[in-house]
Order: sequence, then C-alpha cells, then structure tokens
Amino acid sequence: MPPAVISITEKMDSFTELWSPKIIAELNDCHFKLVKLQGDFVWHDHSDTDEAFIVLSGSVRIDFRDGTVKLNRGEMIVVPKGVEHKPFADEECHVLLVESAGTVNTGNASKNERTTGSGEWI
Amino acid sequence: MPPAVISITEKMDSFTELWSPKIIAELNDCHFKLVKLQGDFVWHDHSDTDEAFIVLSGSVRIDFRDGTVKLNRGEMIVVPKGVEHKPFADEECHVLLVESAGTVNTGNASKNERTTGSGEWI
Repeated sequence: MPPAVISITEKMDSFTELWSPKIIAELNDCHFKLVKLQGDFVWHDHSDTDEAFIVLSGSVRIDFRDGTVKLNRGEMIVVPKGVEHKPFADEECHVLLVESAGTVNTGNASKNERTTGSGEWI
Repeated sequence: MPPAVISITEKMDSFTELWSPKIIAELNDCHFKLVKLQGDFVWHDHSDTDEAFIVLSGSVRIDFRDGTVKLNRGEMIVVPKGVEHKPFADEECHVLLVESAGTVNTGNASKNERTTGSGEWI
C-alpha cells in the first residue's frame, strides 16, 4: 500500500484543546505536530532540537530574550535548540510544529500547568 | 536578534522554475524546501531520508509501485526512505518539502533532465 495521505485540515478540526500538540506524521527522527494556541505560554527552551513553527491560521507572537517576532498565516520560524522562547496568541492560532520526536512542549521549564508531554498521535 | 521570520508565501512568489526545490529553512539536519511542480517527474527514491510533501496550492498525484495517491491543498504525505515514487501534476502545484539536508531531487535515478541537485537557498 502507498503511504497514507494525511489531511492537515481534518486533523486540525478533530481536537479543541489548547497548547496540546498532536502528532500527525513522523519523518526520520522528527515529528510533525498540530497545536492550537491562545493566551500565554511559559518561557522554555528545547536543549536538543530546533523547533519549527508554521502558522496555518491566525497569528502568534513569540517572545525571545532579545526581541519579539510576530508570525502570520503563511509564515514560519525555526527556533534554534537551546534558545528560550515564549509564544503568545491574542486569538486562537493554529500551528504546524516540526521538532525531534519525544520533545516535551514545555521543554526545560519545570513541569507546569501547560505541560502536556511530547504529544499523542491523532 | 530573534530568529528571522520566513514568509513561505513571498518565497514561493520569488521564483518560477518547475521541479527545482529551493531551500528556505534548516531544522536539525533537515531542510525545508519550496517546489513548483507541473507535468511528469521520474521514478526515484531517496535511500537515506524520508521525504514529506505538504501541498500549499493545487494538487499532485504521486505514483508508487503499488498504487497511486492524490494530494490536495492542506494534505501531506511522508514517503519513507527507499520507497520509489513519481510525482505528477496536471496543473502547477506548490509544495513544501521536508527532507534531510543534501537530498538530491532525483534521488537514486541516473542524472537526467529533471536533476537540479539538492537545492539553492532563497
């Protein structure tokens, strides 16, 4: 059988939780995850993986210790490993994340109310 | 300085060549590439990397030795390493590829008229 087609749109519509990345695909040692963001996250970094944010709808601000960026639909950023960042979204924003398999959403931060682990497959 | 915002839309608008992947971002040992497809490609595989196709506009058919899939906007597929495939698009289709850095577009196929190498940065 050929590889399965993955509908990003349908997968995104299949859950409502915020800040809870869902795994939709694996490539080499990386996972593709969908996440819905609204409100404030925590400062954290991922010591062993870069992390790509690809905005599919809405917009997100990402604070860094040395500045802030705003990402709109059709834009992406790669946060290098070890770089602290804190996402924030005024309104619900839908993002495709790419990062090493097993990456915990809150990275190096102490376990907190935003910690949901490394994501479940949907 | 914070990491640069990458506009996928603007990068896609910045070139017209078909079948010539352009690198827009690096994550760990992977590259994100934009490519415009129209017409027929060659049978090939990539022996050392999986390859993700994420369709941003249009649609593409990908033939496999054991079947065919059709991908529309908002859909993706991961072609496992070593699996032969042949993309085809009736009309121009825009795709975000993710694969190991250094991957040549025609993979294991003998160098041919579609071979453009592993892509240039834009």
